[in-house]
Amino acid sequence: MSVLAVGTVAFDHIETPFGKRDRALGGSATYITLASRFMSDDVRLVAVVGHDFPEEYVEVMRSRNIDLEGLESRPDELTFAWGGKYHYDLNNRDTLYTDLNVLSSFNPVLPASYTDSRIVCLGNLDPTVQASVMDQISAPEIVLCDTMNFWIEHTPDSLTQLLGRVDCLVINDSEARELAGEPNLIVCARRIRELGPKVLIIKKGEHGALMFAGDSIFTVPAFPLEDIQDPTGAGDAFMGGFAGFLSGCKEINLDSLKHALVYGSVIASFTVEKFGPEALYELTRSEIGQRIDAFRDLTTIPMPIAEITTS
Amino acid sequence: MSVLAVGTVAFDHIETPFGKRDRALGGSATYITLASRFMSDDVRLVAVVGHDFPEEYVEVMRSRNIDLEGLESRPDELTFAWGGKYHYDLNNRDTLYTDLNVLSSFNPVLPASYTDSRIVCLGNLDPTVQASVMDQISAPEIVLCDTMNFWIEHTPDSLTQLLGRVDCLVINDSEARELAGEPNLIVCARRIRELGPKVLIIKKGEHGALMFAGDSIFTVPAFPLEDIQDPTGAGDAFMGGFAGFLSGCKEINLDSLKHALVYGSVIASFTVEKFGPEALYELTRSEIGQRIDAFRDLTTIPMPIAEITTS
Repeated sequence: MSVLAVGTVAFDHIETPFGKRDRALGGSATYITLASRFMSDDVRLVAVVGHDFPEEYVEVMRSRNIDLEGLESRPDELTFAWGGKYHYDLNNRDTLYTDLNVLSSFNPVLPASYTDSRIVCLGNLDPTVQASVMDQISAPEIVLCDTMNFWIEHTPDSLTQLLGRVDCLVINDSEARELAGEPNLIVCARRIRELGPKVLIIKKGEHGALMFAGDSIFTVPAFPLEDIQDPTGAGDAFMGGFAGFLSGCKEINLDSLKHALVYGSVIASFTVEKFGPEALYELTRSEIGQRIDAFRDLTTIPMPIAEITTS
Repeated sequence: MSVLAVGTVAFDHIETPFGKRDRALGGSATYITLASRFMSDDVRLVAVVGHDFPEEYVEVMRSRNIDLEGLESRPDELTFAWGGKYHYDLNNRDTLYTDLNVLSSFNPVLPASYTDSRIVCLGNLDPTVQASVMDQISAPEIVLCDTMNFWIEHTPDSLTQLLGRVDCLVINDSEARELAGEPNLIVCARRIRELGPKVLIIKKGEHGALMFAGDSIFTVPAFPLEDIQDPTGAGDAFMGGFAGFLSGCKEINLDSLKHALVYGSVIASFTVEKFGPEALYELTRSEIGQRIDAFRDLTTIPMPIAEITTS
């Protein structure tokens, strides 16, 4: 199935305790598509850049089989640029600057060839923009949606309207708590799903993720890594891996959602091992498969033995 | 196999957003033994109380088959008392008071019948006191040890000496980071295990736990609960459940350690559903078994399907 990602394509300035990059390739749509491509050969991108966006970065994506028909380039404007500096523990970061540039008037019009997209990833954007993308797609199999605290605080009504339409919300734990107004994540999940999403994924960074689907809760840890270079984009890469995996499934059911959660976590774990999206450039399906096996070892409870179930 | 717990038996004053208890039964040895008893019929307690400790609390433990020969009672002193108030999110608490009382001169002398103990739980105490308990035990199968930031900061040398002797350290994530002087928990684990413990368990509260044993890492989530009344003692109940489970195993190996981690997590999940150790009073092995099954559903990745391992 086709995967469509709408979001940002950006210049990222990144500082972590382990290094620094300036004007690196970044943006949610970049990470989502680069992460989806391992499982889908029909990955479509919708985003906008300015005249300063280099052909070299376009080529990074094009050469990895990402359909860029939906990448709008504006001759008179500058590309969206973001700068962030991570703290010592990598769990917190300060935003150094956010130059919206082209993004401030982003009003995506999908190419006709994109309207039949099946797996739709709405990267973090103004909820009205995300909704307008949904309006242009005829019959999606599943719509995944990200958001952030800014929209929760400033556009709660349009966010609530959007949540009534999406199938799967993918947010981090602090966003879930803010959206639900409640510290307990299990209670949060119930309240958020009452707003619409049948599936909710709560990302917890180094603590893994929780997925709520039907009556089930499924948990995955973060893959244990000694050497994390840069957490930027891990959440978007997770969504891309999740979406890419689903695109290869005959049917989307609880088992395929669980597999997709593992797959997304594994893709995210590779992403943080290098700066920006660099790890996604040369990664192979064989490396991904090996880490999925290791992931299984990490979480598999050995078969029941007499002692543990004796009542 | 026998389980020995050395630690505190205390009066706890507890305030959470959901209620309050004053002079409740508390203390690490209390929780460890009450949690161990479900899998072991030979649970031994070493602790000290004062003349104010009520017979009613002694009876709570005695009636649950806990051997109290090692519970010293001092006629002229008062029982150790602690008060804590939890914040709205239950992840942080303020200590209201710590009255050491009898604990300030606790120098445990084990009854002769305890010296053959096989599974030894050293609850959080001065590391020199923990070491003196080890000196009195002839041939333990495994020694589990807890500690806290106070000892990491104030008695690093005696703590390091102790760590060279214990088999399994059970601490929370902030303690692990402080002990290793490093934010990445995987790096922490390597450094801490270089100090001695072959097995390291890092407890992460609502985010579950990590276990490092041999070349393996094993993760468990926290059991998802909508209604958490009081987190007090969850870590000690975890250790007790873990120890109790191991006491019922023919052999302590990686599989039994993994099962014990699940078992300890399940016991801890029951503990937080009521105030103090109340949940451990009437809990049944059948209820524990049911939650272990639910725990397995929560973490089991469905069997591999073609898509996920295609390389």
